Amino acid sequence: MTVLAVDIGGTKLASAVVAPDGALLSRARTPTPVTRDGEEIWQALTSLLDKVLAEAGEPDLAGVGVGCGGPMTWPGAEVSPLNMPAWRGFPLRARLADRHPGLPVRVHNDAVCVAIGEHRAGAGRGRANVLGMVVSTGVGGGLILNGRLIDGASGNAGHIGHVVVDPDGPPCACGGRGCLEAVARGPGLVAWAQSQGWRPGERVTGVELADDARAGHPVALRALTRAGRALGVAIASATHLCDLEVVAVGGGLSQTGDLLFAPLNEALRAHARLDFARRVEAVPATLGQTAGLVGAAALIHDPDSYWHAD
Amino acid sequence: MTVLAVDIGGTKLASAVVAPDGALLSRARTPTPVTRDGEEIWQALTSLLDKVLAEAGEPDLAGVGVGCGGPMTWPGAEVSPLNMPAWRGFPLRARLADRHPGLPVRVHNDAVCVAIGEHRAGAGRGRANVLGMVVSTGVGGGLILNGRLIDGASGNAGHIGHVVVDPDGPPCACGGRGCLEAVARGPGLVAWAQSQGWRPGERVTGVELADDARAGHPVALRALTRAGRALGVAIASATHLCDLEVVAVGGGLSQTGDLLFAPLNEALRAHARLDFARRVEAVPATLGQTAGLVGAAALIHDPDSYWHAD
Repeated sequence: MTVLAVDIGGTKLASAVVAPDGALLSRARTPTPVTRDGEEIWQALTSLLDKVLAEAGEPDLAGVGVGCGGPMTWPGAEVSPLNMPAWRGFPLRARLADRHPGLPVRVHNDAVCVAIGEHRAGAGRGRANVLGMVVSTGVGGGLILNGRLIDGASGNAGHIGHVVVDPDGPPCACGGRGCLEAVARGPGLVAWAQSQGWRPGERVTGVELADDARAGHPVALRALTRAGRALGVAIASATHLCDLEVVAVGGGLSQTGDLLFAPLNEALRAHARLDFARRVEAVPATLGQTAGLVGAAALIHDPDSYWHAD
Repeated sequence: MTVLAVDIGGTKLASAVVAPDGALLSRARTPTPVTRDGEEIWQALTSLLDKVLAEAGEPDLAGVGVGCGGPMTWPGAEVSPLNMPAWRGFPLRARLADRHPGLPVRVHNDAVCVAIGEHRAGAGRGRANVLGMVVSTGVGGGLILNGRLIDGASGNAGHIGHVVVDPDGPPCACGGRGCLEAVARGPGLVAWAQSQGWRPGERVTGVELADDARAGHPVALRALTRAGRALGVAIASATHLCDLEVVAVGGGLSQTGDLLFAPLNEALRAHARLDFARRVEAVPATLGQTAGLVGAAALIHDPDSYWHAD
């Protein structure tokens, strides 16, 4: 049976009706309303869900699977996405359950759903030990080990962005210091590049930074090298701890290709030295924007692998 | 039914007959022969096993569970323990299976067995997300997540000793740089302390270093502080990645108590800042020398939790 899959982020709401084989039978997206009114976001979401269900011909559903920006309580899924201040403790799972009575509703972190998607149908397909990463405004991830999603104590396993890559490094928004995210998130890269003389004072993002790196701007290139090295160190640590086979790196920054992956792999090879760790492959994620939807659907379609709560 | 549990290391061979509730019905140990002859070690081991089986009244066995120093092929367990050069590719599992026909024989890394022991009956009891560590001549560990032992791709998950705590730190025996083990292993601490003026040129070990730290020697104290901080950073990284509840720290160095745990916890609290990570507890392991035997027995007694191979 089909699943209603939902992907909720600070910039867009996306949904799809997903067949058991992972095919998207219908799909739509809409910008996340910029509002202080949580109900306005809820209305935009339900309109979107009505639309994809209608386009798919109002199919019988096996359940509703959702990826949403964190933090959230888990598995109860009262969500407080960092980039959606209108939702603080919003009872997303309960609301969806009210709207779809009798169906299982399962919510997990959006980066976890991306990792599930890449494991099920993308760069990690067929492997039992996979880290999926999203390198973008933040750095998130999800962990599949022994063939099963790892939730951890509170559903928060996979926070590769807060693996420490330099104990004396830059302060991180989490309150720590030298986290991978502090170095490699897009805005962190931009800030560092601007401090080194790249487009000082301009309002620019990681998109312009990536463009300038591709055009050969030396500071922009150094910024990507710095991020790549930090990623390589964190992936080496994760590989030693978890004996990973594949690390699938997605998110906007990953689309810079070798400008990021060359220094990433150089640092990874320098630090992942035990025999078993040398075999790990760090590769670009392959599903792009659909990974989160594919992963959210799998929360319903394959609970043996991906859903171990209630 | 009872299990024959075995713990094989570079300095001692230990064995016990273990009841399903974890009680040790008989127990013995013997120094590991210092020899180039692998068969001599095998003879010492089989004599030891005969002894504990006789002392327990030749019980019916459910199987043989073994913790052994790595590296090894896994689950086939041709073992090449770092500190036992006479065993290189020694077919430990096959030899034990020949000796105990019809019984399951299961071999895992010795630090993994310690972690299992602490999860089953020690500092991690009743928790589903536990990292067990052994801080001694090396730094090893084992990872239990979602209530199950994590093996990883090749049985090597748990190598917390090669999580990077300082990318520009001291070279590590693995070929990398700045691994936790390079900073926090006993011989590494001793070398660092001697470079800072503590007992230069003397043949000393972590035991003397710990004794001098307890007596207030400032360089010895700084060495333990340095190790504790590195442990705290690595534990913070592991906690963010795996959403751990408890980290049980065992091994000789852990017996220095607050001299190690105070700086460890200071660094852990500084770096583990996300809400979920603040809840992690880093505590001394509680089972001591028996942890490895209790864990090895659990490979047979509780395969749902601890044995996911063949």
